[in-house]
Amino acid sequence: MMESEIIELFIRHLKRQGDLPLGDDAGALRLGDRWLVATNDMLVRKTDVPDIMTPEQVGFKAVTMNVSDMASMGAEPLGFLFSLGIPGDLDSDYLEGIARGIGEALDFYGLPVLSADTNEADDLIIDGAALGITERLLTRSGAKPGELVCVTGDLGRALAGYLVWKNGLEVSDAVRKPLYEKFLEPRARVREGSELSKVASSAIDISDGLAKELYLLAEMSQVGIEVRPESLPLGKGVEEVAELLGLDPFEIALASGEEFELVFTVAPEFVESLNFDFSVIGRVTRGKGIYLVDDSGKRVMPKLGWEHLTGFQMKILYS
Amino acid sequence: MMESEIIELFIRHLKRQGDLPLGDDAGALRLGDRWLVATNDMLVRKTDVPDIMTPEQVGFKAVTMNVSDMASMGAEPLGFLFSLGIPGDLDSDYLEGIARGIGEALDFYGLPVLSADTNEADDLIIDGAALGITERLLTRSGAKPGELVCVTGDLGRALAGYLVWKNGLEVSDAVRKPLYEKFLEPRARVREGSELSKVASSAIDISDGLAKELYLLAEMSQVGIEVRPESLPLGKGVEEVAELLGLDPFEIALASGEEFELVFTVAPEFVESLNFDFSVIGRVTRGKGIYLVDDSGKRVMPKLGWEHLTGFQMKILYS
Repeated sequence: MMESEIIELFIRHLKRQGDLPLGDDAGALRLGDRWLVATNDMLVRKTDVPDIMTPEQVGFKAVTMNVSDMASMGAEPLGFLFSLGIPGDLDSDYLEGIARGIGEALDFYGLPVLSADTNEADDLIIDGAALGITERLLTRSGAKPGELVCVTGDLGRALAGYLVWKNGLEVSDAVRKPLYEKFLEPRARVREGSELSKVASSAIDISDGLAKELYLLAEMSQVGIEVRPESLPLGKGVEEVAELLGLDPFEIALASGEEFELVFTVAPEFVESLNFDFSVIGRVTRGKGIYLVDDSGKRVMPKLGWEHLTGFQMKILYS
Repeated sequence: MMESEIIELFIRHLKRQGDLPLGDDAGALRLGDRWLVATNDMLVRKTDVPDIMTPEQVGFKAVTMNVSDMASMGAEPLGFLFSLGIPGDLDSDYLEGIARGIGEALDFYGLPVLSADTNEADDLIIDGAALGITERLLTRSGAKPGELVCVTGDLGRALAGYLVWKNGLEVSDAVRKPLYEKFLEPRARVREGSELSKVASSAIDISDGLAKELYLLAEMSQVGIEVRPESLPLGKGVEEVAELLGLDPFEIALASGEEFELVFTVAPEFVESLNFDFSVIGRVTRGKGIYLVDDSGKRVMPKLGWEHLTGFQMKILYS
């Protein structure tokens, strides 16, 4: 079964949902005049952890994955919870590295741990959950025609780093370092999300690739989107890897998952007021369809991105 | 490593905790004049699911485990989240049964699902989390000398049911039915927890056995406890199973885990006001130690209960 089939099967049986229907980066409940936001995200070693990742990086990432969903909802993260599945033969130093990584991430995001559970399991599993709160919720369904489509930071380094690792590419340290930093140590855009909660109309974090997130955003907002490929902020080293493998660097940027950058839409008049690094990559249009537009014309954006439940999750990069 | 060693290792690295330190049934944060309560609890098929359990019962129980922690904190449950680890070869009917069971439990507890995540994993895993809210928090550390120790419902059926299943005991349907009901379909004491949040001094739910919970309660409250064994409310069928196996039925009641009954302490003057079934089983004393007291004298209560991370979790019943 594909992930989408499983999700459909569950949604048929789960009639009771929160004040925001399932389908966003997180769920939400009204709590007085604020929104309580909650999300969960499971990390499984076999499918999610490359062998060069240190246990500290694994622990940190389990927190980041969840905090990023708070950021994309415009919520201030309040707390973190996690359950561990631990194989009987797991090295205690490795386990301590994970504990250290989770602790470092909680310090980095200024977040308390509220609850933890340990269990025996066949593979190492860290299932995290995060809670947050916000006065104004950012969803995937608020994009409106005429708005600008923007993205924080840069794009493509997570996938380019993965490709270097997977293909054993020989690259210089200067190329490898920024790629591996993003591939192994991504950070959630909490401050940006908090600022965006005041002005943006919609947001989503890049967990499965920019193209896949744009398709979701457009579908849920019932709008079209036009992106100018030359405006995509390519990360340092992405072009080098693309050249080595004969790939289009902009396709790497569109397909790269677990970037944890925020994609958001905002009315043009608010763009000037944002106090962080971001790029305007396109605009929201009436109608349907996601297009790449440049001087040579307009073509449908390929549905690039990561697909889960297909063995190692990054296996199908180009669907 | 034992569960307690793993927990200790993590606590060393997790300095940031909520407004209630780790060690209760759930974590908590102050939110204005209320407490936001959050917990998570993972269910792993290999260690937690007997082969006679239907997928509907598995799904239901994954919700109950978490809701029960809300009840023991005196919190009104607000929402449920879950992550699924799904083996590639899992039957889609089985998966639908789990979805149905989760849906039935959400209806039963009147609870929305806020977030769900699916992943590939080697074994079936359901990691649930629950959120709740309360004006007054029940913890494990509030018991005071002179109070009564009480328990909701009855005791021992979960373990007696397990023993029937594990040993293939031949018992009549009249004996088996109430035992299997508790063993396979336990329910959380939400209404009771909500009522107790107004009057009780401390509470804990029975997940690992009454004796183990009493030891935790006494340690965290820095008190002693005396229990009168004859006052333990034995569930229907427990004595029959004890006799068949040559066991003491009161030891079954002390050791039986996943009962999801609430153990609580309350000042004697409040006992009359409680509007649900419960039994007074003992009293809180000054000093240390948990004793069984009857007409023949006083003896230390054996530390009975379930131990995790030891293969099938119910393997070590008598530690």
